[in-house]
Amino acid sequence: MKSKNKILIAQGGGPTMVINKSLASIIQEAKKKEFAIYGAINGVNGIINNQIKNISYLSNTKLNIISNLPGAYLGSTRDKPDKKYCLEILKMLAFKKIDKFFYIGGNDSSDSLRIISEEAKKLSYNLQCIHVPKTIDNDLILNDHTPGFGSAAKYVANLFAGINLDIDSLPGIYIGVVMGRHAGFLTASSSLLRRNLSDGPNLIYLPESKFSLTNFCGDVLKSYNKYGKCIIAVSEGIKNKKNQLMSSTITSQNEKDAHGNIQLSGSGALADYLANHLKKKLKFKRVRADTLGYAQRSFPNFSSEVDQKEAFEVGKIALRCSTINKNSFSVGIIGREQKRYKAIIGINDLKKIAGKTKYMPQKFINKQGNNVTNEFIKYAIPLIGKNLPILN
Amino acid sequence: MKSKNKILIAQGGGPTMVINKSLASIIQEAKKKEFAIYGAINGVNGIINNQIKNISYLSNTKLNIISNLPGAYLGSTRDKPDKKYCLEILKMLAFKKIDKFFYIGGNDSSDSLRIISEEAKKLSYNLQCIHVPKTIDNDLILNDHTPGFGSAAKYVANLFAGINLDIDSLPGIYIGVVMGRHAGFLTASSSLLRRNLSDGPNLIYLPESKFSLTNFCGDVLKSYNKYGKCIIAVSEGIKNKKNQLMSSTITSQNEKDAHGNIQLSGSGALADYLANHLKKKLKFKRVRADTLGYAQRSFPNFSSEVDQKEAFEVGKIALRCSTINKNSFSVGIIGREQKRYKAIIGINDLKKIAGKTKYMPQKFINKQGNNVTNEFIKYAIPLIGKNLPILN
Repeated sequence: MKSKNKILIAQGGGPTMVINKSLASIIQEAKKKEFAIYGAINGVNGIINNQIKNISYLSNTKLNIISNLPGAYLGSTRDKPDKKYCLEILKMLAFKKIDKFFYIGGNDSSDSLRIISEEAKKLSYNLQCIHVPKTIDNDLILNDHTPGFGSAAKYVANLFAGINLDIDSLPGIYIGVVMGRHAGFLTASSSLLRRNLSDGPNLIYLPESKFSLTNFCGDVLKSYNKYGKCIIAVSEGIKNKKNQLMSSTITSQNEKDAHGNIQLSGSGALADYLANHLKKKLKFKRVRADTLGYAQRSFPNFSSEVDQKEAFEVGKIALRCSTINKNSFSVGIIGREQKRYKAIIGINDLKKIAGKTKYMPQKFINKQGNNVTNEFIKYAIPLIGKNLPILN
Repeated sequence: MKSKNKILIAQGGGPTMVINKSLASIIQEAKKKEFAIYGAINGVNGIINNQIKNISYLSNTKLNIISNLPGAYLGSTRDKPDKKYCLEILKMLAFKKIDKFFYIGGNDSSDSLRIISEEAKKLSYNLQCIHVPKTIDNDLILNDHTPGFGSAAKYVANLFAGINLDIDSLPGIYIGVVMGRHAGFLTASSSLLRRNLSDGPNLIYLPESKFSLTNFCGDVLKSYNKYGKCIIAVSEGIKNKKNQLMSSTITSQNEKDAHGNIQLSGSGALADYLANHLKKKLKFKRVRADTLGYAQRSFPNFSSEVDQKEAFEVGKIALRCSTINKNSFSVGIIGREQKRYKAIIGINDLKKIAGKTKYMPQKFINKQGNNVTNEFIKYAIPLIGKNLPILN
């Protein structure tokens, strides 16, 4: 008698509003196939520390509740395994006799998975590694978009629609700093609920365009003179002409995470710096600056219903494909139907995805590098769903 | 023939998610009585600058859309009129032959209204001044609570429920700075969706309790040792033992508004200061700090349905009472039914409300001054409505 298939699921990197949708659907599908289902607590860190628990018992009712919660239900990690770490992981997976390892994560997590799958092959350990994408940054190559992005984009778009009304009430300058280290998709989404030409954000600065303080002041002044206000969306990852992060140039207190990345979120320094610069240079009196913060990825009860559905489908298809295709792979939303929006879910070569970053294509950014094009709006608007405010 | 009743409506101070509910209901009721309805653009500032427009034409369909939008539809102001300014207002109101002046605002606005009504009396101008409360701070005396608070509280509670799940995924310290200059009601609302003892916010610091950095470090360490995490809600208005605003002690760049108040919102300085202090003193590695920002008062499509309904009712009753009671007054939620939550709307003496501040009563704050009591939760929970996340 063939022994029961054993699968392990882990979640890695920053959570999203729908990361648990993918988790729930993998578990539900695996339960149908009567697999033994294990979960690693806090991602790969839980594997090497033997924090692995049987989660086969989770009822569909419980899974339904979990699936609607932001945050990673199994816990996550910022660990980025090197080769030695990966061999530790493999040792534990072999010890637990795991057949399939599902890692729900972004491009850092997919790279960990690539290393693990390559090392397994060398040891002739028949381990199947399946990458299930999630990232609010939307920066995975070969993917039309990633689960997690639509909900974060909905939050950001909705927030800026409110700011627009707030600043219309009490005119002035408003700067909102948005998450997204390398790719500007989330910052660009601040535009998605604009209705009129004067609606904010009036300016959008992305990591893909070089940022200059001089041009910034000029842009703000122009918008202010035209509309009597200026609402600005700024990515936390904007870089100057020397390709240095603006964040890293303004403070020495920057913290690096385990990936060697400078910590950008959880600090108001960039927003305050830009606000003070405008006050000083342009003598504006009312300049307000917010850093949007962790709510962008964790605000409950506000996900995009399209994103929820897709995150669930991606997990389901990951499990199904793993029983047909015996190799390692990365599942994902690889395209969309053209006439009426519908995601096309398929699989990609793990090696081709791993550790790579997708940037905003030039066609999504205006010539001046201070706003988005209609093409971006056409691309992103279906992803935030239909339950949106009626603004006029 | 008696000439048509002429009413003027204005909105003042920081907008809320439901300030337009009160505006819409005043207009709708006034239309039923066939009053001539005028709106002042940007509050009292619009009156002295003759920015007054006829808004009788607004259809009920349009009013319904407006009523669901955050931000002040007529525009708002931070102007705080002195006597001279008030006489300018009176001159314009007399010129426009206004019978009733409705000012939707907080305690600063109510104080402007008091001065105007007193000056009118001296001049034997038969002007009726009606204060219609709104404030996310919930700091109006003689009111059980104020329209605007419930929706802001829902946003803050929901945000912290998400942060709790996010920090459970990637453990560490989280500081969230919440609006509320003098009163801690909104910061306290961060507690409203806690389910388990370990759920954040684990600590809550309010303007009503003196803040000490030493106690703060001790509290955080204790929580971290107990739960492996610490989520902290901090009011922007916390004060040290000398009764100085913590914000004012940490930076010299503070800006004052027209009321002489130091600008607290729209800057991440306090959050960053507290985070850096914890990093330095306690050697914590992962400390994140967000300043919740303007979304607290302006996030569309997320109001408390209870708050929406009450803000609408308050406006409606303001108009109706103004036709029965010919004096100036302040309408408001003056109490609640005890058995099953229901707001009791009534009127207060304008003089008694004007310019005064309600603080959190001691019974809502724990002995250590670092959390709220169950009594606060019992008080505030009905106000955020029923459409809440299912958390476990």
